[in-house]
Amino acid sequence: MSRFIEIVEVGPRDGLQNEKAILSVDEKLDLIRRLEAAGARRTEVVSFVNPNRVPQMAGAEEIMDALGGPDPKRSRIGLVLNMRGWERCVSTGCDEANVVVCASDGFGTRNQGATVSQQLDTLAAIVERQAIDGGPPITATISVAFGCPFDGEISEDQVMAIAREAASMNVPEIAIADTIGVADPWTVRKRIEAVRAAAPDARLRMHFHDTRNTGLANAFASVEAGVDVLDASVGGLGGCPFAPAATGNIGTEDLVYMLERAGFETSYDLAALITIGRDISERLGKAPASSLARAGGFPS
Amino acid sequence: MSRFIEIVEVGPRDGLQNEKAILSVDEKLDLIRRLEAAGARRTEVVSFVNPNRVPQMAGAEEIMDALGGPDPKRSRIGLVLNMRGWERCVSTGCDEANVVVCASDGFGTRNQGATVSQQLDTLAAIVERQAIDGGPPITATISVAFGCPFDGEISEDQVMAIAREAASMNVPEIAIADTIGVADPWTVRKRIEAVRAAAPDARLRMHFHDTRNTGLANAFASVEAGVDVLDASVGGLGGCPFAPAATGNIGTEDLVYMLERAGFETSYDLAALITIGRDISERLGKAPASSLARAGGFPS
Repeated sequence: MSRFIEIVEVGPRDGLQNEKAILSVDEKLDLIRRLEAAGARRTEVVSFVNPNRVPQMAGAEEIMDALGGPDPKRSRIGLVLNMRGWERCVSTGCDEANVVVCASDGFGTRNQGATVSQQLDTLAAIVERQAIDGGPPITATISVAFGCPFDGEISEDQVMAIAREAASMNVPEIAIADTIGVADPWTVRKRIEAVRAAAPDARLRMHFHDTRNTGLANAFASVEAGVDVLDASVGGLGGCPFAPAATGNIGTEDLVYMLERAGFETSYDLAALITIGRDISERLGKAPASSLARAGGFPS
Repeated sequence: MSRFIEIVEVGPRDGLQNEKAILSVDEKLDLIRRLEAAGARRTEVVSFVNPNRVPQMAGAEEIMDALGGPDPKRSRIGLVLNMRGWERCVSTGCDEANVVVCASDGFGTRNQGATVSQQLDTLAAIVERQAIDGGPPITATISVAFGCPFDGEISEDQVMAIAREAASMNVPEIAIADTIGVADPWTVRKRIEAVRAAAPDARLRMHFHDTRNTGLANAFASVEAGVDVLDASVGGLGGCPFAPAATGNIGTEDLVYMLERAGFETSYDLAALITIGRDISERLGKAPASSLARAGGFPS
């Protein structure tokens, strides 16, 4: 049997959040439903940020409401930056809360108004609240884990320290995120080993941006290092606020192509993904950033 | 000391050959000179094809003449498809002849008017002629080695058979080329092992197109498999005649970024490459296909 790689679709959240065009709730719902029909089993569908600050993410409650309660085959993930976000995540019935901890104070204070230490306190408080009041499973994402636009290089030690803290709170899944797309696959491999040593019981998820074209190389290095869960964004949606002309997350269709061509299994229908990637790019008024949406699959 | 990876710049040949815009001899010379100043030590500068058939490649003799004879620090490579091409390559004073053998009859007959077997006969005749009359060193490139737009899948055995033939002629360097950009890094690794077994004495060079975003992953897999020579094209020049919206060769600046970020050495100046990639893309009237030309390097 071939190895199964789980791909978490983050287009509706990390993708759209970094696009200039703002979609309506109905358009976002349509995107989510098409992605789920194309095979997405875990989808980051909403972000519990202040819609005045991030208008792209408005309507989280309406989206979760319209998705209509738990589906045993699907997990809808909400991004959480603080306790208010956690409360919204619980009350909307998200299946998972993805709590972000930035690896640098420079990014944390600008992006979330909190230092690394304050963000770890928030994560601990959320974990504690969940233990008392219940709520969805919590995953932690260590963002800017390979470099920060403000603080520059991020060391392995910085990432390990955060992973160790998250592990001490028994967070079941930890993601290492190359938020600004600066990682190379050799460093990815080393950082996976380091985080494994720091958090041996956590499941590891990797999150790459294709800003400097290393996204799929980093994904390959991760799968080779034994990682089974990767984030990706249909159409390569998203961008990088720190490099306006750059591309966004690795495209789900690009990742699916690479994996399936090598004989891995995913839950996705490649042809459907390519169509969704083309459609959403057209709606956003831009050429698709994913290569598969431009080139198509293996010529037949 | 860090490991050195040699990057053969193929933008002036494989890049420009697949662009719609046709550059003048002077513009091509300017590109070549800027690339050499930016660190290119081996550059595919001309193609000895019929300029009526491939107008982008007109002026090979003028280009070689203007480059002004041998430079001990540089190698200027000419692409050769047949005996007439070899004769032109010798008479213009190219430092290397890169002879192409397609891995499929479907591609070979359409691209070079010759089956695989006929192309191998041509290679043998060129090697024999070189032994008698002299001429530059010969490298062989096995094109469409991971898939063909006409014949579909290309097996490891097909590639090995060609490599074995080339090895029997003592060709010192063999390139495995993913001409249409369909390879995945796992297959790349296997194919490298297979060609090594078939041609144990030949130096291996890898040539990737980024058509389906796997180019840098394939480069990473190659370097990990011990390959020290890779082709790349500044600005990610080129395209794919079989997928009109797709991108071309892997961008030299993208490859240099990935390698240098991981501590490898190359002969290139990344900042200079980024500028050349942006300039040539502007001249060709298109957005740069390389990611580095769009995003820049590690934020400073």
